[in-house]
Amino acid sequence: MDKLDTICAIATPPGSGAIAVIRLSGNHAINIANSVFQSANKSKKLIKQKANTIHFGTIADGNQIIDEVLLSIFKAPHSYTGEDSIEISCHGSSHIQSRILELLIKKGARLAQPGEFTLRSFQNGKIDLSQAEAVADLIASSSESSRKVAMNQMRGGFRDEIQDLRAQLLNFISLIELELDFSEEDVEFADREQLKSLVQKIKLHLSALINSFRLGNVIKNGVPVAIIGEPNVGKSTLLNVLLNEDKAIVSDIPGTTRDAIEDTISIEGILFRFIDTAGLRETSNIVEGLGIERSKQKMNSAEVILQILDAKGSNFQVLFRKLKAEFPEKIILPVVNKSDMLGRVNMIRVIDGVPVIYISAKHKHNIKELENSLLKAINHTAVSDSGTIITNVRHYEALGKAHQAIERVADGLENQIPSDFLAMDIREVLHYLGEISGEVTNDEILGNIFKNFCIGK
Amino acid sequence: MDKLDTICAIATPPGSGAIAVIRLSGNHAINIANSVFQSANKSKKLIKQKANTIHFGTIADGNQIIDEVLLSIFKAPHSYTGEDSIEISCHGSSHIQSRILELLIKKGARLAQPGEFTLRSFQNGKIDLSQAEAVADLIASSSESSRKVAMNQMRGGFRDEIQDLRAQLLNFISLIELELDFSEEDVEFADREQLKSLVQKIKLHLSALINSFRLGNVIKNGVPVAIIGEPNVGKSTLLNVLLNEDKAIVSDIPGTTRDAIEDTISIEGILFRFIDTAGLRETSNIVEGLGIERSKQKMNSAEVILQILDAKGSNFQVLFRKLKAEFPEKIILPVVNKSDMLGRVNMIRVIDGVPVIYISAKHKHNIKELENSLLKAINHTAVSDSGTIITNVRHYEALGKAHQAIERVADGLENQIPSDFLAMDIREVLHYLGEISGEVTNDEILGNIFKNFCIGK
Repeated sequence: MDKLDTICAIATPPGSGAIAVIRLSGNHAINIANSVFQSANKSKKLIKQKANTIHFGTIADGNQIIDEVLLSIFKAPHSYTGEDSIEISCHGSSHIQSRILELLIKKGARLAQPGEFTLRSFQNGKIDLSQAEAVADLIASSSESSRKVAMNQMRGGFRDEIQDLRAQLLNFISLIELELDFSEEDVEFADREQLKSLVQKIKLHLSALINSFRLGNVIKNGVPVAIIGEPNVGKSTLLNVLLNEDKAIVSDIPGTTRDAIEDTISIEGILFRFIDTAGLRETSNIVEGLGIERSKQKMNSAEVILQILDAKGSNFQVLFRKLKAEFPEKIILPVVNKSDMLGRVNMIRVIDGVPVIYISAKHKHNIKELENSLLKAINHTAVSDSGTIITNVRHYEALGKAHQAIERVADGLENQIPSDFLAMDIREVLHYLGEISGEVTNDEILGNIFKNFCIGK
Repeated sequence: MDKLDTICAIATPPGSGAIAVIRLSGNHAINIANSVFQSANKSKKLIKQKANTIHFGTIADGNQIIDEVLLSIFKAPHSYTGEDSIEISCHGSSHIQSRILELLIKKGARLAQPGEFTLRSFQNGKIDLSQAEAVADLIASSSESSRKVAMNQMRGGFRDEIQDLRAQLLNFISLIELELDFSEEDVEFADREQLKSLVQKIKLHLSALINSFRLGNVIKNGVPVAIIGEPNVGKSTLLNVLLNEDKAIVSDIPGTTRDAIEDTISIEGILFRFIDTAGLRETSNIVEGLGIERSKQKMNSAEVILQILDAKGSNFQVLFRKLKAEFPEKIILPVVNKSDMLGRVNMIRVIDGVPVIYISAKHKHNIKELENSLLKAINHTAVSDSGTIITNVRHYEALGKAHQAIERVADGLENQIPSDFLAMDIREVLHYLGEISGEVTNDEILGNIFKNFCIGK
């Protein structure tokens, strides 16, 4: 990509609103803006204005005024992209947005590719690749936990950790390579015991990061939950109760919008996605309606299964064990509905160590307890502001490869292999860590990352 | 409304995007922003920053960072509302937008009512009421002509005209009232002939504004067009050709969005809306499918009727005259389709003074000529950058009442009625003109105007 060309895009959500913001970045950003902008104070020259200032005026195509706007100036390197940049805040009609964009293109800018502003920020050394990826995650974040993790990553938490690991390894390898220079003399600059303990520490660190991915994936994509049970046991009523309780909280403030994610609820910032619930709400008769095969597939994609049992039934243990036998890997929560119809006498509190949850979906009884059980099931306590959690498959894979390589280093140290082989394995660890930060990269990797960004970011 | 409270709202379109903008306006705007914003340069105090400057930092709820943002400061009276104002440009996740809004409300702001920022701009004397109304029109503008008219009105074109008329009348009435003071002495300070010519001039001006409303309405709401004709004459093919030609132009620039107005086309900036076209595209057999009554209703709501005739038929005049007899008020354009199947010999060029348009919808032949005929039909030449066009029913009605009152003034001058009666009629003209500008207003008028604004403007 030509670093010199100037790119533009609408940065605000599509559609009409009070205002919209159009971004312009590149060497000619200020010149292009100057050619279409007339300050309300006519003697003001845009080119002479200071960075980080806002100016009121008009955007005009020749003599024709298109809109009254606020124009913000940012100067390299103190801008999002690291380049000279302009933001035009115009009236939020789609028609006006298009007219201004067309005009900027006519004056020499070109329409930005998805994520191209963030790509430039990376290319200009403002952020590393893991931070760039976090920007997209942050924009996509629809729950409190996913926002927190993305924010920590965007602010460089993960970057710093990777840099720290790299720094330790670089220190290590410099000593090893010093030994290679003096290989004739058979000296050891790097104390092997210290090295072993360092490698062990790095291995543990990488393992912890890799292990955080399961939780990270849950945070980013939500926890898939299946609700199953016999016909008329109250599955659809329960789903509606869960969904409505959450929506009631969200819609407390009028005018706030919520992403149109159907059939998800957020419990203490963790998103739970109900799988294949369309049918559930249309008919409570889902087990009859679905073939066994499809039922199984559905449950296989779930992380947690809510097994709804009828309080009037008595075969709770049998049904639970049958399901557990079929899906031994899944977290199954036995939930007895219509508990108001139950005497206290025959309440089974625990099945095979798993507590039974008694609710009444109809009377909204004990719903909070059910929500707490869902949280406990995925061990949500691990989500905090600090502590890095991996949410990105690319990072997960690179860390896995780095982990394999560091294990080879550990083995090599154990087996006292020659320093030059040791150095090769360490270089490999550095390579994979560099892939995460973007110190090692190529157009294909960049293309894959940025194609999923929205235009304007 | 309490002028002292500080209001906040999301100003950008709902949904996710690269960035979103949250507005805050009122006496405490800067203090509230200061309580949640931490500049990247920690020693920077928001309160000490200059107006029209931008600051990079974080929004935090206690210790928890919600987002990295750009924050813009505007100081009274140099802001949109005329009050101290803040704009926070955050990452465009709906979740983040809600979190920041919640936080601002927690810190003492309240969610703005629809149009409340613009209402404050009016109340603080930054704009008059006609300009406030133009802001909403500008945001809603989906064609070039509606944008132009709204822009001219927002920039004060109409305001200045009304002020000019008022100034002339005020000069007039001051002379009349001087006469009243000296009524004992029977003097005339105001030359009656000069007055007559001034009143005549004002009457003509008001008439011109009133007459512009028909065109203004067309510009604002689009021209309703009905396409009628016998089954299989090619109505749906023609509609698709017209719609697709327009869309092809609009979608030239990827990433530009277009309001989801179905079945409208823009010809040289004028919007044409096709009435009840859903049926047209599903079946070309619309005349058969509709009852006569519904067909009539549909055509009654049209401004222009495209009567599609089959080139193979020969009864063009009969069909046209029949339709014209039924809808004498409507503009009917006879359009002969499938003209490629026609010899040149039996081409009827004109029916009763109305030119016949020959097209082939299938081969996209002469579509441009048809579009030009649509433009001519509504006399589009009257739309230009200059020249005020009334688009607002409220203005139309106030101008009508002002016109009636000025006619009474003219009659009074003619009949030499006493000065005090003359003064009363002039006061009435001033009253109605004042309603337009908002010099005369009440909560009900304001409520009706601003309830249709979007929140955040």
